[in-house]
Amino acid sequence: MKFVGVDIGGMSVKVGIVDENGTILTKKTAVCHPDGDENAIVGEIASLIAEVIDQAGILKRELAGIGIGCPGSVYDEKGIVRYSCNINFRNTPLAQKIAQLVGIGNVRLSNDANCAALGETLFGAGKGAKNSVMITLGTGVGTGIVVNGRLLTGNCSAGAEGGHIQINMGGRKCGCEKQGHYEAYASATALIAQTLEACRKYPDSLLAKLVAEEGASGKSAFEAARQGCPVAKRVTSRYIKYVGMGLVSFANVFYPETIIVGGGVSNEGDALIKPLQRYVSRNVYGAQYNPPIKVVAATLRNDAGIVGAAALCM
Amino acid sequence: MKFVGVDIGGMSVKVGIVDENGTILTKKTAVCHPDGDENAIVGEIASLIAEVIDQAGILKRELAGIGIGCPGSVYDEKGIVRYSCNINFRNTPLAQKIAQLVGIGNVRLSNDANCAALGETLFGAGKGAKNSVMITLGTGVGTGIVVNGRLLTGNCSAGAEGGHIQINMGGRKCGCEKQGHYEAYASATALIAQTLEACRKYPDSLLAKLVAEEGASGKSAFEAARQGCPVAKRVTSRYIKYVGMGLVSFANVFYPETIIVGGGVSNEGDALIKPLQRYVSRNVYGAQYNPPIKVVAATLRNDAGIVGAAALCM
Repeated sequence: MKFVGVDIGGMSVKVGIVDENGTILTKKTAVCHPDGDENAIVGEIASLIAEVIDQAGILKRELAGIGIGCPGSVYDEKGIVRYSCNINFRNTPLAQKIAQLVGIGNVRLSNDANCAALGETLFGAGKGAKNSVMITLGTGVGTGIVVNGRLLTGNCSAGAEGGHIQINMGGRKCGCEKQGHYEAYASATALIAQTLEACRKYPDSLLAKLVAEEGASGKSAFEAARQGCPVAKRVTSRYIKYVGMGLVSFANVFYPETIIVGGGVSNEGDALIKPLQRYVSRNVYGAQYNPPIKVVAATLRNDAGIVGAAALCM
Repeated sequence: MKFVGVDIGGMSVKVGIVDENGTILTKKTAVCHPDGDENAIVGEIASLIAEVIDQAGILKRELAGIGIGCPGSVYDEKGIVRYSCNINFRNTPLAQKIAQLVGIGNVRLSNDANCAALGETLFGAGKGAKNSVMITLGTGVGTGIVVNGRLLTGNCSAGAEGGHIQINMGGRKCGCEKQGHYEAYASATALIAQTLEACRKYPDSLLAKLVAEEGASGKSAFEAARQGCPVAKRVTSRYIKYVGMGLVSFANVFYPETIIVGGGVSNEGDALIKPLQRYVSRNVYGAQYNPPIKVVAATLRNDAGIVGAAALCM
């Protein structure tokens, strides 16, 4: 059985044909014009889907469905994009429009982070798990949660906003204006802020020099730590503890087989994952009576969105 | 269709016959001897089940199954009680034993707090909801979570330990020895500690006098607040904020239709529920775009366990 997976981004749209094992048979990326007219954007996406189906030499009736991942607030059950910061969609019945334009009835829609989590769980870093939590450490902290093989979305698909659990009463201000949220401590943005604070406090540190030369990024502290800078080591180990605190909260609620860490910061690999694994194993409730929870880095990278979107139809 | 619901407690066992609407047709309670031999306890439970079936004048083949709620660590899928603080069960295959003794094949088992949450969601305070979170404010903070009409249990039923999400970095010590957990702020035990702290700080307050006369309980602060004591009002409003913080974290992850508040403290009714509702509505993520989340007090009280256990078979 074959499926179409569509991963809509702010800058580009990716479309792939995916088989039931999560293997991408063919794929294509096109530039997206997110500020354009709603119907123009939908038309571009539909054309790209048709093109990829053609290119793969597959008949429409061989396709079991089209799955679409889209950034923003998505109402999965109704196939509607309520709004998106990056794309000019407002209460857009995207699933229905694509079904009409492409001529395939079974079109499913979900948030792009949810799709990535589903893809990683079923076919990537979480393969074999029935329950998983994926966090994406980027500008914010995204969460995608799989319970018994199905995405957790909540009423009207408004849930899975795990970046906004509170981990520190009265603490740092989050992007959403509330205080003490996970995202305000564990996002790449937060790591950069923590890095800059350390640079101001220790202007003679190797970290401060590196940041002065290259500018601050989510990599700066990890890089300086690798070069032996004690200030940077304190920054990274505190940051990892912050990330771990949220993971332990998720673990105590979901007790998944696997926690998957994605997003830019996850490129640090073992320097991030190994201490996170230790932190989770040491702090999860009831660990002595239950199988360990594996903490792993995402593996599908840029393909997770296509594969996970296709998996919405599986 | 009829079902048997069994609610095992540390002091007593309750058994009821429940119909598909969650109505208890007949029920009976018996004293439990939790320190006895494992087989003796199981035998007592089986006898009580047989007695209630007899008493109701129902044939075994009219019963679709037996559901059992048991305190402690329960492995739902295997029907095993791994351990229980209050009852002498250790890796006890309770479902299988009851099936053999009673002669009904379909026996389901879950944690008692999970059963109460399922009962309240399907037939009590959450009736009509597909997604709910129930918190029980007692000695600890129990959580039972329903996602799409099904209990969330996690791998090996080790999840739903929402009392142990972290809400305050480095904060108060929890019963599990870790710091800053929800339970350490929101349980009735925590409320009593907060009450006693206020009494020590304000020995001339009405609250301190009331506690000196009657001893401290989870009711003291609410009672003194009702009598106008400003110290008690500060205690209750801070406590309600603590409870609300956890609820908002759950709301952001699950976005349920309903949050159900049970346990001893929930007897305070509107004095607790109304400010909690305001706190959740004001702080949940994306509230402006989504339907409101209702915060309600549990309504089934002592029957929630029987009804919810029966619902395991529905």
